[in-house]
Amino acid sequence: MTLDFKPRLLLGPGPSATHPRILQAMASPTIGYLDPQFFGIMDQVQDMLRAVFETTNPLTLPVSGTGSAGMEAALCNFIEPGDSVLVGVNGFFSQRMCEMAGRYGAEVRRIEKPWGEVFALEDVREKLEKKPAKLAAFVHAETSTGALQPLEGLGDLVHAHGGLLLLDCVTSLGGMPVGIDQNGVDIAYSGTQKCLGVPPGLAPLTISARGQAALMARRSKVANWYLDLSLLSKYWGKERAYHHTVPINMIYGLLEGLNIVLEEGLEVRWQRHRENAELLWAGLEKMGMSLFVPRAYRLPSLTTVQIPTGVEDLVVRRRLLNDYNIEIAGGFGPLASKIWRIGLMGHSSRRENVTLLLAALREIL
Amino acid sequence: MTLDFKPRLLLGPGPSATHPRILQAMASPTIGYLDPQFFGIMDQVQDMLRAVFETTNPLTLPVSGTGSAGMEAALCNFIEPGDSVLVGVNGFFSQRMCEMAGRYGAEVRRIEKPWGEVFALEDVREKLEKKPAKLAAFVHAETSTGALQPLEGLGDLVHAHGGLLLLDCVTSLGGMPVGIDQNGVDIAYSGTQKCLGVPPGLAPLTISARGQAALMARRSKVANWYLDLSLLSKYWGKERAYHHTVPINMIYGLLEGLNIVLEEGLEVRWQRHRENAELLWAGLEKMGMSLFVPRAYRLPSLTTVQIPTGVEDLVVRRRLLNDYNIEIAGGFGPLASKIWRIGLMGHSSRRENVTLLLAALREIL
Repeated sequence: MTLDFKPRLLLGPGPSATHPRILQAMASPTIGYLDPQFFGIMDQVQDMLRAVFETTNPLTLPVSGTGSAGMEAALCNFIEPGDSVLVGVNGFFSQRMCEMAGRYGAEVRRIEKPWGEVFALEDVREKLEKKPAKLAAFVHAETSTGALQPLEGLGDLVHAHGGLLLLDCVTSLGGMPVGIDQNGVDIAYSGTQKCLGVPPGLAPLTISARGQAALMARRSKVANWYLDLSLLSKYWGKERAYHHTVPINMIYGLLEGLNIVLEEGLEVRWQRHRENAELLWAGLEKMGMSLFVPRAYRLPSLTTVQIPTGVEDLVVRRRLLNDYNIEIAGGFGPLASKIWRIGLMGHSSRRENVTLLLAALREIL
Repeated sequence: MTLDFKPRLLLGPGPSATHPRILQAMASPTIGYLDPQFFGIMDQVQDMLRAVFETTNPLTLPVSGTGSAGMEAALCNFIEPGDSVLVGVNGFFSQRMCEMAGRYGAEVRRIEKPWGEVFALEDVREKLEKKPAKLAAFVHAETSTGALQPLEGLGDLVHAHGGLLLLDCVTSLGGMPVGIDQNGVDIAYSGTQKCLGVPPGLAPLTISARGQAALMARRSKVANWYLDLSLLSKYWGKERAYHHTVPINMIYGLLEGLNIVLEEGLEVRWQRHRENAELLWAGLEKMGMSLFVPRAYRLPSLTTVQIPTGVEDLVVRRRLLNDYNIEIAGGFGPLASKIWRIGLMGHSSRRENVTLLLAALREIL
């Protein structure tokens, strides 16, 4: 068995295309996880992750798993049995948060909104006034719906009620502002394979001072050894104490991916994601299609578009894949067969990709 | 920050050297985790993992984390609060098993042996006759001591007492026989970065029919979402149901690593590991050094040697690293400053590496 498969243009919800420089970085010779040379790489990765998260949080590191491991690390380290966790549920990934939090013994309370909508401060205030929560968890960029949760005032509100704000930045980090410090986010995680444009395998995570204090105040051990931040932080911090063997070559890839992000510049990169998304939106609308999420809270990294009446979801996606080598995705759960999800993330967010996808769709439809 | 570090000769306890073909495979373009082309890669990886584990277990897959995630997956899926878990504790990694099992609410019972020794059937029988255990867990190749646990009769003994045999194969898989089916092992895991010679980032795992029955009989959800085999097996099985985005490029690397293992042939590969280890043992003894583990249960993949009296552990290891670019490791816990750990695993297990290390040690000592 060889790897002589056809390359694809990745315009789905992730992974996005990997920049050739990152692929090359990952092919650098493996060195040891306690090699002083590797410590230098770790420091650089952490510094650059802080820049991309827009934070000064010392506790910022890549978890050795994919984005879902980041979600689980963000939850399991802060939950002890019986803790109250408020989750804003408006899509697939916020449902997953409820599922995970429940496994760690949390008392999960949901604020529900239809898939595709977002939460107003009032929705959250009402729930917190009824009963405070240790964690209030939201998805910043909901990959299942294409909606962007506004963050203004959310951190202050959660803090005023004595809680921690947890934010899923899987589909936002590197493609739009996240402003972890400015928005008072205490716990945030992402995946490498979306707007950072690095292959899947690592989950960047950052924890505020308030979050660190909560970790220190735990009465019980974290009910997950591999993701226990009290152990991870000793390897990623000054002690360099062995916890587990981290994915060395993936970290090379993340280093190079972050180099690329910061060479481009965050603002320029966000603008590129925005402009290419707007080109796509205009093109889809010109073809008579309707975008699923109102412009006011539409994601630049992932566009959801309603499948026109009479058009077969799978037929179109199969033709895109088989005849054009283009991957886009369908909807999940209540949105299955109703929408397509088109990602323009990282190295996939390029004008020529928008042009090609629109032209291919015109040929097929 | 660039990746212009000095390459190292990796002769520590892992990671081992990555074969250039594997590095090249990992640099293949990223494709989607639901791409039919990727399903073909998954099938091949699973088939080849079965061959290397010497099993026909359908439930055989790489966990999306490093070896310790494999250990946690092996434990958390089979433990419900109050379950009795018997652990053979004779080194660092069996202690880690106790720590993890405790976090999942197991009643952990230990059979203790001094570090470097192994367990006889009688030791295990005595404990199981006193009280049965749901899991009996052992480390096949103890990376902290260099000892190889004999497996003859262990599976039958554990089964006769109604338990499951769990085996850590992190430092054995691909470098010596593991005989999962022949030895009646129900749950086994490994890491990619040892004798398979693939960078760290994945943990091959295999579960017997008896193990699968135990999974089906659980009364509660697995207390770990990311590692839950009931969900993972739906993605790695026929359903192809999304669970998490697996580390695509790491799986390319594993595919190529397994190609290399099977092209060489298991028996030839085991023999190579054995012969190079014997060269090392003879060379060290010729220099007047004493090997830590008796020949009868000495690992071919990882040699532990006593640091000669009057020799400073760190001084020698720093000189090896800085002057020769060779990485070996010191001891953990009770063996700190007492032994060196020298790995000859995967692509690192080559005659020229043994010759170079012995010559460098002669120059330094």
